[in-house]
Amino acid sequence: MTAQGGAFDVVEYYHDLVAKDPSISMPVAAVSSLVKVVEQQRATTMSEFMKIVRAASEVLKEATHRSISVSAGCDVFLQQMARLSHAQGVEECRDALISAGNNFVMTAGQCRDQVAEIGSPFVRDDQTILIHSYSRVIMGLLHRAVKQNKRFRVYVTESRPDKSGLRAADELLKLGVPCEVVLDAAVGYIMEKVDLVLVGAEGVVESGGLINKVGTYQLAIIAKAAKKPFYALAESYKFVRLYPLSQYDLPTYRSDLLAFKDSGNVDWQTELQENNPTLDYTPPEYITLLFTDLGVMTPSGVSDELIKFYLD
Amino acid sequence: MTAQGGAFDVVEYYHDLVAKDPSISMPVAAVSSLVKVVEQQRATTMSEFMKIVRAASEVLKEATHRSISVSAGCDVFLQQMARLSHAQGVEECRDALISAGNNFVMTAGQCRDQVAEIGSPFVRDDQTILIHSYSRVIMGLLHRAVKQNKRFRVYVTESRPDKSGLRAADELLKLGVPCEVVLDAAVGYIMEKVDLVLVGAEGVVESGGLINKVGTYQLAIIAKAAKKPFYALAESYKFVRLYPLSQYDLPTYRSDLLAFKDSGNVDWQTELQENNPTLDYTPPEYITLLFTDLGVMTPSGVSDELIKFYLD
Repeated sequence: MTAQGGAFDVVEYYHDLVAKDPSISMPVAAVSSLVKVVEQQRATTMSEFMKIVRAASEVLKEATHRSISVSAGCDVFLQQMARLSHAQGVEECRDALISAGNNFVMTAGQCRDQVAEIGSPFVRDDQTILIHSYSRVIMGLLHRAVKQNKRFRVYVTESRPDKSGLRAADELLKLGVPCEVVLDAAVGYIMEKVDLVLVGAEGVVESGGLINKVGTYQLAIIAKAAKKPFYALAESYKFVRLYPLSQYDLPTYRSDLLAFKDSGNVDWQTELQENNPTLDYTPPEYITLLFTDLGVMTPSGVSDELIKFYLD
Repeated sequence: MTAQGGAFDVVEYYHDLVAKDPSISMPVAAVSSLVKVVEQQRATTMSEFMKIVRAASEVLKEATHRSISVSAGCDVFLQQMARLSHAQGVEECRDALISAGNNFVMTAGQCRDQVAEIGSPFVRDDQTILIHSYSRVIMGLLHRAVKQNKRFRVYVTESRPDKSGLRAADELLKLGVPCEVVLDAAVGYIMEKVDLVLVGAEGVVESGGLINKVGTYQLAIIAKAAKKPFYALAESYKFVRLYPLSQYDLPTYRSDLLAFKDSGNVDWQTELQENNPTLDYTPPEYITLLFTDLGVMTPSGVSDELIKFYLD
């Protein structure tokens, strides 16, 4: 599992980064790791150099089970490399890429704050907000709204199987925000009392849709049926070059997900924990607006940004 | 908690019935209990007689936390009493009511079989069926389809918080039906692969909508968005005289359901288990057809039947 070009283990480095700083976001850790690869490699030709970086990126994606957000970070870095490689020699490209990567890592931390700043005017006094699962960017936005002395209430979905909603509820209580956890099956029941829905994203795709914790898609369907605004929050480095055509067209898809069992003693708990999907895809028609550090966007605005970035 | 008119305890009798025969349906147990009340009472005037029976019915409803299906049984019985009281004296009314009640209890057992018979043509070879939670009438229909050598697959929702879907999955495995449990949050994910949705009902209301285990409503919304047929199964004695205007207009509604918490240490597990709704209301526009022992009906057909029954 070591990347070509030496004894440096990109996967180990990546896991170290995440372990040392639990608040680091995965695309940022991925870019940091690839910067390290670039620093360590000793390629003499441009094609060798690019091959090493691409291989390391592939190793990293594979080792993280093709995580959408790791892929997003890798893709941003590879695109940067492709752009820099056109004009320059190996040495210059190497230095420029390291500096671009470090710059990305430095500014990425601010992205979450920018999203919170851009999104917070949408949270108003006396609103009831429904959030799904645990998302750092949502917690950031709600934290900012509390600091602005806004008073609002939050419903949080339990978000099985890992019950990550409970973590969000705990944090909200500490912030002094009245909140309550809601069964994943009770979203339809509660939607009538909700003023707006906020979700985070693992990745925002080229269609303008988003990939996020399982349950996001049905939340969006239910919100649309009840004509409630559905806002997604995402840092721009989560934009990924994917165009899923269905729920089963995601990089995390495995054919044994939700496979039918027909004999013997089946441990249903294991099925729920391990053989159910962890992510789903929400098509753009269900998303009212996206709050990103590039501004408030419609789903089609995201497509435009992505095309611009990758055509540059 | 004893009903007026003697030492007979209608609530205790009801709970005994349910404990002795776990397969008894609640409306049937309620009617059986009220028959016993009628047998035990010693009223001398018609008005006293009706007062005793109405009081017993009220005590029973209250003791079962206004359970929709117990209410359904009680309402059928009270309607029968009102009808018989018009023409006859106390003695005759008493005897006729006992005989009508016993007759109801005897034939009720067949209703579930009739629903299975009427619904089973809708299950065809090679279909993928999504069911919600555990429902005896659905298990009856699927059992019949298996006996007819139909081959199909079933997705079952986990149906938190009591995880009743796991019980359904166990029974289906024993019947040799390939099945898999699905997170309550993964219904949107899986709907594309589903051919039809089957749900049971605690009660079918005057609008033609239904009251059932929480999650049914959002299942129906998601099915409609994916243009999949959504069939509800219900014995006709589950038709109830209710016209809910929203989710919060059900007899089981409590104001502390999903109340916001704003301080201290909250046990979220308790919130999920005890302060989340157990039932929700699915409006008629989401229901494709209802399979009942009176035949296959549209939601508006149910309204007609209910009006007919209570106007008679």
